[in-house]
Amino acid sequence: MFEAAELGQKVDKATYAARVPELVTRLLEAQRALRAAQVPVVIIVSGVEGAGKSEVVNRLTEWFDPRGVQVQAFWDETDEERDRPRHWRFWRRLPARGTIAVFFGSWYTQPIVARAFDQLTDAELERALARIEALERMLTLDGALIVKLWFHLSKKAQAARLKDPRKGRKGEWKLSPLTKKFAKRYATFARLSDAAIRATDTQSCPWHIIDSEDRRHRDLAAAGTILTAIERRLAATPAATPAPAAAPAQAPVPVPVPAPAAAPTVLDQVDLAASRLAPEDYDRQIEAEQRRLFELAWEARRRRVSSVIVFEGWDAAGKGGAIRRVAAALDARLLRVIPIAAPTDEERAHHYLWRFWRHLPLAGYLTIFDRSWYGRVLVERVEGFASPDEWGRAYREISAFEEQLVDHGMALTKLWLHMSKDEQLARFQERQQTAWKQHKITDEDWRNREKWDAYALAIHDMVARTSTAAAPWTIVAAEDKRWARVQVVRTIADRLEATLG
Amino acid sequence: MFEAAELGQKVDKATYAARVPELVTRLLEAQRALRAAQVPVVIIVSGVEGAGKSEVVNRLTEWFDPRGVQVQAFWDETDEERDRPRHWRFWRRLPARGTIAVFFGSWYTQPIVARAFDQLTDAELERALARIEALERMLTLDGALIVKLWFHLSKKAQAARLKDPRKGRKGEWKLSPLTKKFAKRYATFARLSDAAIRATDTQSCPWHIIDSEDRRHRDLAAAGTILTAIERRLAATPAATPAPAAAPAQAPVPVPVPAPAAAPTVLDQVDLAASRLAPEDYDRQIEAEQRRLFELAWEARRRRVSSVIVFEGWDAAGKGGAIRRVAAALDARLLRVIPIAAPTDEERAHHYLWRFWRHLPLAGYLTIFDRSWYGRVLVERVEGFASPDEWGRAYREISAFEEQLVDHGMALTKLWLHMSKDEQLARFQERQQTAWKQHKITDEDWRNREKWDAYALAIHDMVARTSTAAAPWTIVAAEDKRWARVQVVRTIADRLEATLG
Repeated sequence: MFEAAELGQKVDKATYAARVPELVTRLLEAQRALRAAQVPVVIIVSGVEGAGKSEVVNRLTEWFDPRGVQVQAFWDETDEERDRPRHWRFWRRLPARGTIAVFFGSWYTQPIVARAFDQLTDAELERALARIEALERMLTLDGALIVKLWFHLSKKAQAARLKDPRKGRKGEWKLSPLTKKFAKRYATFARLSDAAIRATDTQSCPWHIIDSEDRRHRDLAAAGTILTAIERRLAATPAATPAPAAAPAQAPVPVPVPAPAAAPTVLDQVDLAASRLAPEDYDRQIEAEQRRLFELAWEARRRRVSSVIVFEGWDAAGKGGAIRRVAAALDARLLRVIPIAAPTDEERAHHYLWRFWRHLPLAGYLTIFDRSWYGRVLVERVEGFASPDEWGRAYREISAFEEQLVDHGMALTKLWLHMSKDEQLARFQERQQTAWKQHKITDEDWRNREKWDAYALAIHDMVARTSTAAAPWTIVAAEDKRWARVQVVRTIADRLEATLG
Repeated sequence: MFEAAELGQKVDKATYAARVPELVTRLLEAQRALRAAQVPVVIIVSGVEGAGKSEVVNRLTEWFDPRGVQVQAFWDETDEERDRPRHWRFWRRLPARGTIAVFFGSWYTQPIVARAFDQLTDAELERALARIEALERMLTLDGALIVKLWFHLSKKAQAARLKDPRKGRKGEWKLSPLTKKFAKRYATFARLSDAAIRATDTQSCPWHIIDSEDRRHRDLAAAGTILTAIERRLAATPAATPAPAAAPAQAPVPVPVPAPAAAPTVLDQVDLAASRLAPEDYDRQIEAEQRRLFELAWEARRRRVSSVIVFEGWDAAGKGGAIRRVAAALDARLLRVIPIAAPTDEERAHHYLWRFWRHLPLAGYLTIFDRSWYGRVLVERVEGFASPDEWGRAYREISAFEEQLVDHGMALTKLWLHMSKDEQLARFQERQQTAWKQHKITDEDWRNREKWDAYALAIHDMVARTSTAAAPWTIVAAEDKRWARVQVVRTIADRLEATLG
């Protein structure tokens, strides 16, 4: 594949000087249009050592308006990054809508380098590439444009450039100390890069190979490729633009969803009546489970195993009380509770999973999400805040996300607190009558209640489609708070124990 | 001081049960009022080991509405935290306006522990405490409420509690493995804590010592103290509430500032006419300085020395072009350019310095701030977005901030690009006539130009009050772009060289 790029294309000085002004004008126009259309752009700069990626990046920051461009270097991995699944470091640096990120190094770097140095098997590399493809597809579907550039040099051209970096040309002194180390393995990298590029050269996210022997040709080709990609993206049908949930600082307009006829769901299988606990049994059991969780959490901290715990459930099912029983079992320093309410504008300016990636725990800690990414397939589905396309593909996106947590060694617990419609009514009424509980009941709770059946169906689909062997759902019978609390603490402890092995 | 807290106060079960409902009701009310008033609250939980701080924190998260409360544990320091000045880890976790952060461990922990283990001298401890006091004052002036709680146990009570942690009481198993290590040094910690508390027991941020021998008394006293502090804060005069610049999602209302008579300023001392460079001299000098900066930056990376570079200057003075010449000298992976424009809503919900703390570079990297924290004493002062009180105290706040960067070992360069009013006019006109430069000129630029003298005065004050030996200003003559670019690259290189020693 690379041979096709070794065409020896050259651009002379006069042609270059003549073409730059128009190119810059169009790049700036494109950048303004991107901002208006709120399209986030990731430009991936990769390729062989010595091809001058650093120079290209500098050229791009010179030609674009720098206020909307961030260069993101993925180089050293910090311990905060190592503590989370591999993709965390990319998620935290994804561009906000309407801005451009130039990724110098990217999700491709580590798998290819690790394979070249035999730290990964072929199968592991393949899986890493499949995840990359899933990530790119997810971001593209969310409205992002990803431009993937590969700067190529023939082995001969690379050797010439590295041999005498000071060869009299301006800028030649800019070789990083790492360059030579990689150049030694030209053939290995060429083979692996070729494979990686083929595996991820998709229609929505194609690769662009750029012959880098001539600098002027290289820079014009890079900028031209980016410009074409942006102009195409902007000309695309409105269907490709971000959906309502993505629009910044603007309330989503609900699309009415017809209430489905009440059908039996996975929830109907829960025996709510039988799941009760007497007070004296509760005291004994909760104490035992809390003590167990306490010991496990310290063991997990010693062994740097993290827990991610998802709390979902009907309004008034007792999420808050259950979370407090979990917190009471733990040293407060080990736990963070992240309540998920309306997103901030920084969160709205990213993919919906971004706000969860940013809160993943450090090694050895626990994070509770009080409501979670499942909002996409629950409230956003039922209320029409997400389009059928969006929530429809979210099941797969969520499973891919959770798979990364589990593969990283995290203990993932997903809890749905279930109760009957009658019990909910009783609790709503109690809340309204108790002074210090009134803040817990809002008009929205009553409105949600009217859509009970639509929610039941969404919950059924959610459990059916995202309860995997690695990340199973636990439906907690929460008709009786005592029973539910014991089961919640026990499930979290079980999951952590299983992960600790 | 602590003896005064050893009063053996006890609360019996019935009294406790009777008082909790009213307390919780009032805490929830106070929390709602805090949100409405957009007051951020930091509750510092500190004290001797074994006093049950973890239990108190759990109790607070139980009594407050957990959605507005975050427990922040300062325990392990990550390498991303070690790479920045000491206070970075606190700034990144400060509560947004209207929310509560419970700090378990705080800015007090490290200095006291380090002193106890002889890693700090008395003088260093004193300086650390002075910085804490400055930080607390800064946050309080910005509208925050800081409630500092010290949970005390007599030596005897502590020994009893640690000796037999399972003594038959519920929750007693919750001693962390670290507890005993610190208990051995009871006397040392008591002496140092007493000193630290005295040194930082200010009128606006007083300490509260809480006798922790009786658990029920401890929890009621803690919650009661917090409640009183919040109620007092809310009852305070509107003067204490956050100023316009702090109000979220709301355009600040400009307060007209009379244009001062043109007075000679520090800028008038710059010889703009003489500061010119011929093209051939420029080519030679910029290349030499860029090469020098390139080498220094790699050396800095090896030695983990970071650079923070502040670019300020008149509109059209050539900040963008100068930044590009700096970027061209550097490996793009080492540099991040942070353009400072309108803050995001997350940024608006914090102290104005928060958005700069969050972008401080990792060890060995360079960060350019394209406009900076000096906006507070420039545009916000001149346009009336900050009150005289606010921008008046900002000089001291900024100097304290910069002192921490320099003390951490960072190379800090502060550049003001200066030009004449005539030259600015010529450049504005050129921008309007060049297609691909039109985006660079806005109505705001013309409006700012009308306030030239007011800005000149603000710049004069800024330089006079924040140009310290550790963090000097460099006023760059930017009438001639070539001269300015060389001087910019040279100044940054000089500063880095001096820091590398």
